[in-house]
Amino acid sequence: MDKLHTFYYILDLLGTFAFAISGATAAKQNKLDLFGIWVIAFTVSCGGGIIRDICIGAIPPAGLTNWYYLATAIVATVLAIRLYPTVERLNRPVILFDAVGLSLFAVTGAQKALSFGHNGEAAVLLGVITAVGGGVLRDVFLGRVPIILQKEIYASAALLGALIVVLGNYLKWLSGDLMAIIALTLCFTLRILALRYHWNLPTFSTDKP
Amino acid sequence: MDKLHTFYYILDLLGTFAFAISGATAAKQNKLDLFGIWVIAFTVSCGGGIIRDICIGAIPPAGLTNWYYLATAIVATVLAIRLYPTVERLNRPVILFDAVGLSLFAVTGAQKALSFGHNGEAAVLLGVITAVGGGVLRDVFLGRVPIILQKEIYASAALLGALIVVLGNYLKWLSGDLMAIIALTLCFTLRILALRYHWNLPTFSTDKP
Amino acid sequence: MDKLHTFYYILDLLGTFAFAISGATAAKQNKLDLFGIWVIAFTVSCGGGIIRDICIGAIPPAGLTNWYYLATAIVATVLAIRLYPTVERLNRPVILFDAVGLSLFAVTGAQKALSFGHNGEAAVLLGVITAVGGGVLRDVFLGRVPIILQKEIYASAALLGALIVVLGNYLKWLSGDLMAIIALTLCFTLRILALRYHWNLPTFSTDKP
Repeated sequence: MDKLHTFYYILDLLGTFAFAISGATAAKQNKLDLFGIWVIAFTVSCGGGIIRDICIGAIPPAGLTNWYYLATAIVATVLAIRLYPTVERLNRPVILFDAVGLSLFAVTGAQKALSFGHNGEAAVLLGVITAVGGGVLRDVFLGRVPIILQKEIYASAALLGALIVVLGNYLKWLSGDLMAIIALTLCFTLRILALRYHWNLPTFSTDKP
Repeated sequence: MDKLHTFYYILDLLGTFAFAISGATAAKQNKLDLFGIWVIAFTVSCGGGIIRDICIGAIPPAGLTNWYYLATAIVATVLAIRLYPTVERLNRPVILFDAVGLSLFAVTGAQKALSFGHNGEAAVLLGVITAVGGGVLRDVFLGRVPIILQKEIYASAALLGALIVVLGNYLKWLSGDLMAIIALTLCFTLRILALRYHWNLPTFSTDKP
Repeated sequence: MDKLHTFYYILDLLGTFAFAISGATAAKQNKLDLFGIWVIAFTVSCGGGIIRDICIGAIPPAGLTNWYYLATAIVATVLAIRLYPTVERLNRPVILFDAVGLSLFAVTGAQKALSFGHNGEAAVLLGVITAVGGGVLRDVFLGRVPIILQKEIYASAALLGALIVVLGNYLKWLSGDLMAIIALTLCFTLRILALRYHWNLPTFSTDKP
C-alpha cells in the first residue's frame, strides 16, 4: 500500500510537471509575459482538478491550497524561459510524462468523484475533465480552439481510463488498486500508440452531397 | 399535475435535443473530430444548467449525473455526422425546438434557483444563464465572440421568461404553475416573433462625433 | 471602524464603476449589442468575485444576489452608449478608479478567503482572481488573449496586495485593518507607477539560439 502511494506520488510529480511545461512553452510561444507564462503553466497543471473539485463539492479546490502545483508552475516557467533549448531537447520525455499525467489524472479524477459519493456517469465525465480540463483552459486563454476537440486520441484515452475505474467499481471483480493500475496502463498505452502511429479520430467534411 | 409534468418532460426532451443538434452542427462545420462534436453537443445542452447548479450549490450538477443529456448528445452527434442533409432539412423545426429549449430552461432555471432559497435577482440571472450559458460556452470553445452578445433577441427573451417567474413568485397573484406557463409562452412568442421579423437589439457605432 | 467601512464602501463604488465602464466601452468597441454591452460590463465588475465565491463555497455568489453590481452595469452601459465622448474624456479618472478597484478587490478577495477558513496560498490566489478574473472573462468573451497575460504590471500589483494581506494575517504585527490599508496603498501605488512609467513584465523571444 505504501509502495503504491509512493508510485502514485512519483507519477503525479511527473504528470503535473509535464502539464506545466506544456503550458509554459505554449505561453512563451504566444509571447505572453512572465506572469502570463506562469498562469498558463499553473492552469494546465491544475485547472482540470479545480473544475472537478468545484463540481463534486471539494471546497476549496486542492489546486488552490497545495503549494506543490504552485511550485511546479514556477519551476516550469523558469525552465521554459531560461533553458528553452534544453526543454526542446526534452520534448520526447515531456510527451511521455504528459501521457503519464493524462492517465493518472483521469484515473484519480474518477476515483475522487466516486469517493465523494457521486454516480458512475459523473465519475467518468469528471475523470476526463480532470485530465483534459487544464489543456482546454490553456487553449481558451490563448484564443485557439481546444486541440483535444480537433484531433488526436487524447481525451478518448482519458475516457477509457475513467470508464475502467468506474466499471471496476461496479463489478468489483478485482481490488480497486488493481483496477486503477489496469486503467492507468491501458489509458497510457492507448495514448502512446496513438502518438506513435498518428491515430486520429475522424472529422467530417461539411460539403453538402 | 401529472399532465403538467409530462408536458414539461416533452418540452425538455425537445429543447435539449435542439440545443445538442445546434452544438453538433456548429462543431462539425468547424471541423472538430468525433469527440469534439460530442463535447460541443453535450456542452450546449447542459453547460448552462451546470453553471447554474454550481452557483446555487446543487452538487453534483444534474448535467453530469443524468444519462439523458449524455444520450441526447450522442444521438445529436450521430445525426449531425450521418444524416447531415436531413438535419439541414430539419433546420426549421430545430429552430422552433431551440426556442422551446430557451423558454423552458429560462423558466425552470429561475424556478430551481428560487427553490434553493436564493433571491429574485439571482433567480433571474441564473434563469438566463441556464438558457444561454451552453451556447456561450460553445462559442468560446469554437473561438468566436458569443453570438448572443452580438445580435438577436435571444437572451432578452430568456430574461423576460425568468423575470415573469420571479415576479409571479413575489406577487403570488396566480399559482406558480400558471405563471410558469405564462412565462414560457411569452418567452417563446418573443423569440419566434424576433426570428420572424428579424428583430435585433441595437448596436452602437464607435465613431467619434 | 464605521469610518473605515464608509471608506471601503466608497472605494468599492468607484472600483466597481470603473470595472463596469472598462467592460462596457470594450464591448461597444467590439460592436456588441445592448445586451452584450451590459453582460460584459456586469462580467468585468463581478466575474472575479463570482469565481472566488464558488471556490470558497460562498453560495450563492455575492455578484448574483447584490442589486448593486446589476445597477452599476446598467449605468455603465447607458454611459458608454449615450455619453461616449464624455466617457472618453473621463479616461484618466477611469484608469485611476480601475487601479482603485484592482487594489480593493485583491485585498478584500484575500480577506474573504481567509475569513472562510482557507489557507494563505488559496487566499493569495483568490485575491488575484477576484481582482483580475472579470477582466480575463471579458477578454475571453471578446475572443482575445487576456491582456493581463501579455503585458503590464496589473495582476502583479494585485498579487502584491493579496500577499501583504496574507503575510499580515500570519505575522499579526499590525491590526488587520492597518495591514489592509498598507496592502491597498502599495498595490495602488505599484499599479499607478507602472502606468506612469510604462513598466511591463518581460516577454521572451521564442527564437532558437
